[in-house]
Parts: sequence; structure tokens; C-alpha cells
Amino acid sequence: MRVLGIDPGIALSGYGVIESKNGSEFKVIDYGRIETSSSLKKSMRLLHLYTELCSIISLYQPDVVAIEELFFNKNSKTAITIGEARGVIILTCIQNNLSIYEYTPLQVKQSITGYGRADKTQIQKMVKSLLGLSEIPKPDDVADALAVALCHILSSSSVLYQEDEV
Amino acid sequence: MRVLGIDPGIALSGYGVIESKNGSEFKVIDYGRIETSSSLKKSMRLLHLYTELCSIISLYQPDVVAIEELFFNKNSKTAITIGEARGVIILTCIQNNLSIYEYTPLQVKQSITGYGRADKTQIQKMVKSLLGLSEIPKPDDVADALAVALCHILSSSSVLYQEDEV
Repeated sequence: MRVLGIDPGIALSGYGVIESKNGSEFKVIDYGRIETSSSLKKSMRLLHLYTELCSIISLYQPDVVAIEELFFNKNSKTAITIGEARGVIILTCIQNNLSIYEYTPLQVKQSITGYGRADKTQIQKMVKSLLGLSEIPKPDDVADALAVALCHILSSSSVLYQEDEV
Repeated sequence: MRVLGIDPGIALSGYGVIESKNGSEFKVIDYGRIETSSSLKKSMRLLHLYTELCSIISLYQPDVVAIEELFFNKNSKTAITIGEARGVIILTCIQNNLSIYEYTPLQVKQSITGYGRADKTQIQKMVKSLLGLSEIPKPDDVADALAVALCHILSSSSVLYQEDEV
């Protein structure tokens, strides 16, 4: 199974591609970020996000996409903007016939560390360790994208976690 | 100028197409709604919204799209869901080479009634009157879509309102 993990954002979306044969051995295919300039109009930023994601899907041919699901307590304008990027990402994936799964930060924490109160550093260290990376990928959005991809693989090979296909 | 007004939503998006030659005479071309079933997965709902909107754009060939911009005080999960639908709508419009303008509810109220504190009924009555309709279109989302299209036409023919291209 080859999983594309995505941490969505309008300015920066992290992505990570992980392959796993049996749910316990992992191979990182690639990771990185899609950035859009704040000097562009929002519509052009969303179009850029769409185009870049199409290229990534075409290049790496994932079987499944795992997306981080966010619940904000911040202002709703920010939530709408994040939602706009998420909408474009979900549309791009379904147009490419990919199955899409969403995981909450709590689900990601539990599947990777076995502990729902793990902090960001603990998760990043586990991601680095599980994937055999020499360092923690930067920025956080990229590490988060790898974490949600890992979460999908771990959840799929376990009866403990219920997947949430969207 | 032919304007497509849209009031975005995942379950129901209202749309209205208005033509104006000089910014004071209006002709309603069509109005209606795009609905998606809650029995579908979110990704399929967004794909349906995309497909239906492509058909509407292809059928009516608007020059410009005007979208209602919302600021929520409600929970951020709702804001993210609305944002997802908005993201798909904006992407669909930019892929069809349309100029896209967003207007806040306040801008819509001011341009249509000249009064920022007008209530929904007052706006709907003005929409009905300005467009020479026999009745107020239902549901509210459709009337709101016609209102934002009208707002764009009135704003474009006036120096009073600053357009906000996205």
C-alpha cells in the first residue's frame, strides 16, 4: 500500500508518500511541501495547489490519501480559508480516483505513540524513528503529513482504529 | 455583463445568473440550486458540486462570478465544511477562466438597499423588485445568490464600492 499523507493549508501544504507492505515495514518514497505565494489572488493560489497536487499524484501513484482533519478554536475566517484548501485537495484526490481518509490529531497521536496526549515533539521523534529518517523533516507541516500517512497504515493494519473515509 | 452569483454550501448552493447592459437594467437568465445528498461521502458531494457548476458555467457562459463571503461566529467545524465547498467553487470558476469577486453580507446589503442594517426580508423584496420577479425565489440560498450577483453589477457601475477580486 502506498499512502499520500497531506497536511492542508493555503500558504503551505505538507505532503509525504510512504509505502508499506505489511503494515509494519515502512519505506519513505518522498516528502515535501506545496507553497503558494501570498502575492497571488486566492483563486490562483488554489489553482496552483490543484496543479501541484495533480503532479505529485501522477508522479507517485498513491493508492490512498490520508488527510489531517482539524478542529479550530481560532477565528472562523481562518477555518474557512483552511477549508478552501481542503476542498481543493479532496476534489483533486477524488478526481484522481483515490480513496480519501481523514484523521483527527487525536487519532494520529494515538496510532503513532499509543498515547492521546503526546506532544508534537514526541510524535515527530516517533515519525523519524519509525521511518528511519536521519532527522525530523521541516517544517512541521511536512512532519505532520508523514505522521497522518503513517497513521493510516497503522490504523489499517489494526482493529483498534476505525477509519473514516470521506 | 453576465454575472453568476453563488451562495456556497455543501448540502445546497444557490446560484443566479443576471445580465445587465448598463448597470441599471437587469435581466434574470436563470436561478436555482445545486444540492448534494447527505448519504454521499463528502468527496463525492464535492465532486458533484464541481460537475454541476461546470454544467451551469458551460450553459450560461457568465463573464464574472460573484460569491457571498461569510464570517461565522458558529463552530469552526461548520466553517471548515463551508470552506471546502467554497474552495471547490472558486477552483471550478478559475479553471473556467472566470473573474471571481467576493462580497460580504454587509456589502450586499449596502449595494442593494443602501442600508447596512437591512434585514433578510428587505433584501429579498428589493431583489424581487429590481429583477421584476413575480415572487421571492426560494430557498433563501437562491435569493442570496441573486442578491450577490446584483451586488456585483451595482458595485461595478458605481465608484462607491470597492470590488474584491479573489
